[in-house]
Amino acid sequence: MKLIDYSKVTINNGFWKTKQDMVRNTTVHAVYDRFKETHRFDALSCTWKEGDPNMPHVFWDSDVAKWIEGVAYILRFERNEKLEEIVDAAVAEIVKNQDEYGYFNSHFLVTDQDLRFQNRDRHELYCAGHLMEAAAAYYESTGKDALLKAMCKYADYIERIFKIEDSAAFTTPGHPELELALMTLYKVTGEKRYADLSKYFIDKHGNNDKDQPIADWATIHYSMDEVPLREATEPRGHAVRAMYLLCGMADVALEYGDQELFDACERCYESLVNKRMYITGGIGSTRHGEAFTLDYHLPNRTAYTETCAAISLAMFCLRMQKHQNNAKYANTLERAVFNGVLPGISLSGKNFFYENPLEIDVEFNHVNPATNTKERFAITERPEIFGCSCCPPNLVRFLSMIGGYAYGYDEDTVYVNQFMDSNMKTDDTTLTVSTAYPADGKLSIHCETTKKNLAVRIPDWCENFTTDSAYTVKDGYMIFDASAKTDFAIELDMPVTVIQSNSNVHDNAGRVAVTRGPIVYCAESHDNGRNLQAIYVDPDAEYVVGESEFLLPGITTTAYKPAENNALYFRANKEMETMTLKLIPYYAYANRGEASMQIWFLKK
Amino acid sequence: MKLIDYSKVTINNGFWKTKQDMVRNTTVHAVYDRFKETHRFDALSCTWKEGDPNMPHVFWDSDVAKWIEGVAYILRFERNEKLEEIVDAAVAEIVKNQDEYGYFNSHFLVTDQDLRFQNRDRHELYCAGHLMEAAAAYYESTGKDALLKAMCKYADYIERIFKIEDSAAFTTPGHPELELALMTLYKVTGEKRYADLSKYFIDKHGNNDKDQPIADWATIHYSMDEVPLREATEPRGHAVRAMYLLCGMADVALEYGDQELFDACERCYESLVNKRMYITGGIGSTRHGEAFTLDYHLPNRTAYTETCAAISLAMFCLRMQKHQNNAKYANTLERAVFNGVLPGISLSGKNFFYENPLEIDVEFNHVNPATNTKERFAITERPEIFGCSCCPPNLVRFLSMIGGYAYGYDEDTVYVNQFMDSNMKTDDTTLTVSTAYPADGKLSIHCETTKKNLAVRIPDWCENFTTDSAYTVKDGYMIFDASAKTDFAIELDMPVTVIQSNSNVHDNAGRVAVTRGPIVYCAESHDNGRNLQAIYVDPDAEYVVGESEFLLPGITTTAYKPAENNALYFRANKEMETMTLKLIPYYAYANRGEASMQIWFLKK
Repeated sequence: MKLIDYSKVTINNGFWKTKQDMVRNTTVHAVYDRFKETHRFDALSCTWKEGDPNMPHVFWDSDVAKWIEGVAYILRFERNEKLEEIVDAAVAEIVKNQDEYGYFNSHFLVTDQDLRFQNRDRHELYCAGHLMEAAAAYYESTGKDALLKAMCKYADYIERIFKIEDSAAFTTPGHPELELALMTLYKVTGEKRYADLSKYFIDKHGNNDKDQPIADWATIHYSMDEVPLREATEPRGHAVRAMYLLCGMADVALEYGDQELFDACERCYESLVNKRMYITGGIGSTRHGEAFTLDYHLPNRTAYTETCAAISLAMFCLRMQKHQNNAKYANTLERAVFNGVLPGISLSGKNFFYENPLEIDVEFNHVNPATNTKERFAITERPEIFGCSCCPPNLVRFLSMIGGYAYGYDEDTVYVNQFMDSNMKTDDTTLTVSTAYPADGKLSIHCETTKKNLAVRIPDWCENFTTDSAYTVKDGYMIFDASAKTDFAIELDMPVTVIQSNSNVHDNAGRVAVTRGPIVYCAESHDNGRNLQAIYVDPDAEYVVGESEFLLPGITTTAYKPAENNALYFRANKEMETMTLKLIPYYAYANRGEASMQIWFLKK
Repeated sequence: MKLIDYSKVTINNGFWKTKQDMVRNTTVHAVYDRFKETHRFDALSCTWKEGDPNMPHVFWDSDVAKWIEGVAYILRFERNEKLEEIVDAAVAEIVKNQDEYGYFNSHFLVTDQDLRFQNRDRHELYCAGHLMEAAAAYYESTGKDALLKAMCKYADYIERIFKIEDSAAFTTPGHPELELALMTLYKVTGEKRYADLSKYFIDKHGNNDKDQPIADWATIHYSMDEVPLREATEPRGHAVRAMYLLCGMADVALEYGDQELFDACERCYESLVNKRMYITGGIGSTRHGEAFTLDYHLPNRTAYTETCAAISLAMFCLRMQKHQNNAKYANTLERAVFNGVLPGISLSGKNFFYENPLEIDVEFNHVNPATNTKERFAITERPEIFGCSCCPPNLVRFLSMIGGYAYGYDEDTVYVNQFMDSNMKTDDTTLTVSTAYPADGKLSIHCETTKKNLAVRIPDWCENFTTDSAYTVKDGYMIFDASAKTDFAIELDMPVTVIQSNSNVHDNAGRVAVTRGPIVYCAESHDNGRNLQAIYVDPDAEYVVGESEFLLPGITTTAYKPAENNALYFRANKEMETMTLKLIPYYAYANRGEASMQIWFLKK
């Protein structure tokens, strides 16, 4: 299917309106303030000299670029002079300091000048890609083309160095992003060379003599260099890099009708969702290399599950949707957005997690008072910025165009992929969805279209639903006759559902998670006391869905704990004490101060 | 109570006869061969020069010393010219190279000469202590006093430097051992100054201005320096160091009738067994500093639980027994010996574990093929030697005098603390125990004594027992009238017992362990396939005790696994498949090649 651009979707109410307002009113400004304070914007002026403080980091440009991209999405709906001035000033610096060849990187222009394109892991092409995405978005929102022109020049230079002359020290990006960005640049400019350059990188990846592992601690698997990408069977190495690369692959496969490349994407997708993805849609099991590990290795307490990795998974799913009208991609996307992306940002919109573990045990987070060494776990409260601060601006741009994830179409069908209280309008279709989703599963859809069908995704979590209209089911969608009527009432049954995982996931053995609709729930020690690990949940118990302070309902149920016993070891018994277990949406954890937190409970 | 010296106990049959024979016939020789190969014996000649390979390590003398101590215990029962020649040659080198003041350390005599007694963590006093223990044992077994004299001279020198002149860079040993060794030296020589010196170190520990944390990564807790030892409330820091220190404290407390010091030992003992000890009697939860961590922090897969730590716990329990005729110390000792010490040595007697984790998951032991970094877990097969090879010779000496753990006496009672098929003879008592323990719980005791009572420990694992004689129960012992009869038949019921742990032990939440008598059982993937973590055990199931190839019986039971489901996540159900679970004694794990292993099973 083709997707309805975010700019054609207006979110009116409900969950996503709240999140969109938060980003527009708070997050975009908070991230700017932190980036300004930390000299990320100053770096663009390229005045840093040896001996000065705050040397521009190789990846700072990507932080600014993602923020600009987010601003562009926001400006599309409503002009904002202040934001636009900031962007224009930043763009002016970039244009001014871009060298005669088109090269721009605020690190390599002021230091390490001899090392340009010499080290595959130094993020130049990654930054270039993000700047191109920003340039395209800003041009489309404002019509201002200064950055777009600058980035086209840069792309031309990259084409020359990497493809025509092949004179860089490496052949393909060490941190993918440029591949997908070139496809965007192509779409905005119509310049086919950019798509061809993207295809060149995809073709050469894992298929050239020059690329080496990106660091001495990395293997060829770390960058998915072990085979040509068309032969890839699973996502490997750095999770974000793998997913951005897969996005580029999917884009190229679609543009060139490259079935072999799509098949590789599909194999990776299936491997990912069936063997390497947390229930939250988080991916990347270890902090060592921020990487994938092995099939079914999904430890909860040490899960890395970077916010950007969930965002990039959603981006990949979106692209796979374009290839196949199968609801499975939208299902995975939904899982990742609600449970993998949103925990990365506080309810206030100002604080961020880079890592999103599925379990926090504050009692044993700092295990050795006798030594200065300690076990390493993710931080337990969201700071306002990180040294490596990719996630906050990624959230800004992601959440600013969330409406673009909702709708699609093909020749004869309009697709509702994600459920948001919103309307969209194209030349041949006017569609309004009224819903409190995911607070409940009721959808009222008004659809005026010249197309034959209205397709509404049946979420993978949904076992029963009712409609007021006849439908058929195809590839995970209910298909309605849009020529016969315009109003459709659908109710997706949204009971609490207790989930179990594959026995190969050793960390989840004997454990279950509580979900409702697309939302994964967790318990915090704030509400449930210590020793969350010892709490038993009965899949057959009654679960009460009620109010919460966290946008979506909370859940309470009667749960069980072993009868108290002060002994360290004692004869096993089956005595249990009941307790009221209070669950909140996982995305809302850590909004009330440091606490232990758990998703997977013992199964009674 | 007073303890019957190992030399007065002859082990005749059964489990411990097998182990004793193994040590005498195999282990003592195998450890010597490895130490000879690795130049630990050569080092005693002090001919190493800068530029030579194999620089003597600061702790090598302690390795040799523990081996000599073990040989001494073996020689007490049967002369062995070859072993005696090796010891005599080693002693001759020590005597020859000891300096004019009595100092001996094969590292500091050939290098770092200026650093003598300058660095609290460099093991000089630790090595000195082990050499004193060896000297005392060798003298008692052979009457040869060359090493004893040399070590008395060394002790005199230490007394001068540390106590009289206080001229060393530190006040108390960074790695305790000397404290208990000085008490041994005192007992063998009758020289009270050695006991006083031991008391001096105990008094000064955590109670002086000079001692600093032993390394920059360590805090004052690492060496239990945070308070004077009389105020200690729990064992902290390096597990072996803490236990050797507690041994010294207990020895001094007994010698000087120091109730305050004993109370500190008792507080540490209670803290240890109620909050910081694995079910195996293993102690030291983390490899970081080989240390204790926090109460109830007892992770299974990353458990460090050094073999030497279990040995030192047994040594501490033995000393606590001397203070109080309470069976609890012997209970803990038994747990530690069977399940904490014995896993450290292969059934062949030639291979050793330093670390003894309670769970091995070979499928996820090496988690990241994409990076050269990997999660760090204990090795899964026993090598013949380690770089830091304290455990193998510690096993030699420990197992060579195991009979010394069996019996005790006080004014009117003979105590049977540990059950071994053995006899012992003192001036007033001839006692024979016939038993297959711990294969079963039957004890036939023949006791001719002029003392009034025979006291037989009621193990903490034993809920029911029968006897053919009247008894009273006191402090965990059944007390028989030894003046009325000489033969006593006791049967300790030894059913399989399923054990649960305190809810504060997060790693064991929802899990149970299978035990029989003093033996903790485990499952290996050899017998039970992969995904041991997902196996449910029913405490109320039938457990069949049968043959095994590992000295003591194996156990089989019907266990349960979740019904197979290929999905990664799915609606929770209670469907189970049955399986036959085959359990072996934990001490016997890793004798059939690398495998996954588990002690704590899900509780059905």
